[in-house]
Amino acid sequence: MTIKVLGYAAQSAEAPLAPFEFTRRDPRPDDVVMEVLYCGVCHSDLHQARSDWSGSVYPMVPGHEVIGRVTAVGKDVTKFKPGDFAGIGCMVDSCRECQPCQHDLEQYCEQGSVLTYNGIDRHDHRPTYGGYSQSIVASQDFVLKVPNGMDLKSAAPLLCAGITTWSPLRHWNVGQGSKVAVVGLGGLGHMALKLANALGAEVTLFTRSADKEADARRLGAHHIVFSTDEAQMSTVKGQFDLIIDTVPYVHDINSYMPTLNLDGTLVFVGYLGDLTPMLNTIPLILGRRSVAGSCIGGIAETQDMLDFCGQHNITADVELINMQEINQAYERMLNSDVKYRFVIDMASLKA
Amino acid sequence: MTIKVLGYAAQSAEAPLAPFEFTRRDPRPDDVVMEVLYCGVCHSDLHQARSDWSGSVYPMVPGHEVIGRVTAVGKDVTKFKPGDFAGIGCMVDSCRECQPCQHDLEQYCEQGSVLTYNGIDRHDHRPTYGGYSQSIVASQDFVLKVPNGMDLKSAAPLLCAGITTWSPLRHWNVGQGSKVAVVGLGGLGHMALKLANALGAEVTLFTRSADKEADARRLGAHHIVFSTDEAQMSTVKGQFDLIIDTVPYVHDINSYMPTLNLDGTLVFVGYLGDLTPMLNTIPLILGRRSVAGSCIGGIAETQDMLDFCGQHNITADVELINMQEINQAYERMLNSDVKYRFVIDMASLKA
Repeated sequence: MTIKVLGYAAQSAEAPLAPFEFTRRDPRPDDVVMEVLYCGVCHSDLHQARSDWSGSVYPMVPGHEVIGRVTAVGKDVTKFKPGDFAGIGCMVDSCRECQPCQHDLEQYCEQGSVLTYNGIDRHDHRPTYGGYSQSIVASQDFVLKVPNGMDLKSAAPLLCAGITTWSPLRHWNVGQGSKVAVVGLGGLGHMALKLANALGAEVTLFTRSADKEADARRLGAHHIVFSTDEAQMSTVKGQFDLIIDTVPYVHDINSYMPTLNLDGTLVFVGYLGDLTPMLNTIPLILGRRSVAGSCIGGIAETQDMLDFCGQHNITADVELINMQEINQAYERMLNSDVKYRFVIDMASLKA
Repeated sequence: MTIKVLGYAAQSAEAPLAPFEFTRRDPRPDDVVMEVLYCGVCHSDLHQARSDWSGSVYPMVPGHEVIGRVTAVGKDVTKFKPGDFAGIGCMVDSCRECQPCQHDLEQYCEQGSVLTYNGIDRHDHRPTYGGYSQSIVASQDFVLKVPNGMDLKSAAPLLCAGITTWSPLRHWNVGQGSKVAVVGLGGLGHMALKLANALGAEVTLFTRSADKEADARRLGAHHIVFSTDEAQMSTVKGQFDLIIDTVPYVHDINSYMPTLNLDGTLVFVGYLGDLTPMLNTIPLILGRRSVAGSCIGGIAETQDMLDFCGQHNITADVELINMQEINQAYERMLNSDVKYRFVIDMASLKA
């Protein structure tokens, strides 16, 4: 039997998302079948639904911040049993053999990891469909355990916004005594503040809007710096070990570079594209500074992040929506009108 | 007594270099006085003489690849005695108290290191004058020991071209098994090939000119890749741990980025300015790659480099010129017509 599923799909780059019926595969021996309870709405869902990055294949069922309840497992599955709460993030498979895969860096798989949606399954070569749907099927090796007692709806964004900011914090060894700055206070930015704070760092938010100050402090920022205020910017020269730049659209990073300390790194996690205005090399050379990028995180690292969040009582700040409201949610997201992540209550699909 | 010295100076950004008489300070207790025997001609001498980077102060006596013989020492000097061969690179002092200075990173001194020329002495507040001159005076802490038996004229470029490429090779842990690429085959590039090879790396030169192949192999490159040949470029995708970019003028690095492996770094050592065309962030994010910069090297690191070069019989490939030929040498340097570094024979000043 194949499983009939109702979801929401984009049928083209121009079409709004609309109901779409499709089938999920029968579970393979290593597969977990989950009833989707909640699915976060990531900025990249919108980018991909609208083919902003090209390479979009339709119909497309977005969604890669998936929290659900296990309903069935394949015969070789040992990590999960029916009734467990579980999560799926941005990937559902990878080659599992290349150097990065062997080192728990499946997100950098040399053959390309299989994305949760807009990907192609490595075995049946059918398109992958994401979490804007009633159920989802994936290998247990790409399914995460949800810590006991974690609030399920606000856990969903951890699977992308959480891990995308966690991974660079860990890779660049942020901990007690580190000074971290975050650029942008959206879905990723608000997680970066929470996680950097919980890791023991001294945390600064760079922002342009005075109205974000109270929220930023509540989320974990110790300092707020207005990036358009030159006097304030000069007070933080040479300060930061790491700047996590979460802004998902083109923007100027030159004013942030001198605020890095010797050997400091600015890491992009949200913006794919050309750097305009041009990046100037002088602050790089005169402080051995780096501009880097980081892409989500590996599966083991994602589990570590979830476990850490469980211990530190961290989840995302979310606004719950019904599946039918997704197109309005995309418009509000484009206007930065969300604090800080929309999460779809998948029960709304049954109504 | 102050020491009367003949040198060559630029009197303005437009003026050719010409003879200039000035005084050197009497040695302080920690000072070493050197008769200059050879001085390398660095691309940045030309940039600064012509005020390409602004901040040039005239008259300017360039030269920061200085090899000489010690003629006198201050009463507290313990490292050198008259008759010793010694070297001076890009810096002659720093604050010696800040974090970077305390960690042998004087080139990143928070108060700014005192440059060998176009700088201001921290004690007498007089301008510093470089190695295009008969003698030079500096604190023993910024004077390097020349390994026994090293060819003096071809040792001079080690003090800038050598350390500038050595420092990133060491900082990014290049050794046996590393894969390193070098962009640009000039003064810095030819040293990068020699040093990376001697450190045990597998070395590739990126070039646009087929006529550089034989030389590159002789200098230490195991592979040559024509950066304008897309087919060749695609054969080295994901290959390099480190790319040392020595090109001193604006150029496009986007084609090099995908040739870095996971966590690989492209480091600028030669170009100060805006990156045109714009840098694209996609290869950064999808491979956790970095673009960084690196500035010369610390004094202890410079001594390590000289000692390593002594052990491995490495010096620069140089063309000896007379002091009077400096202006023609600048023109030839602008046309990349030098293999691979001009060195001024300071005996010509006596003639």
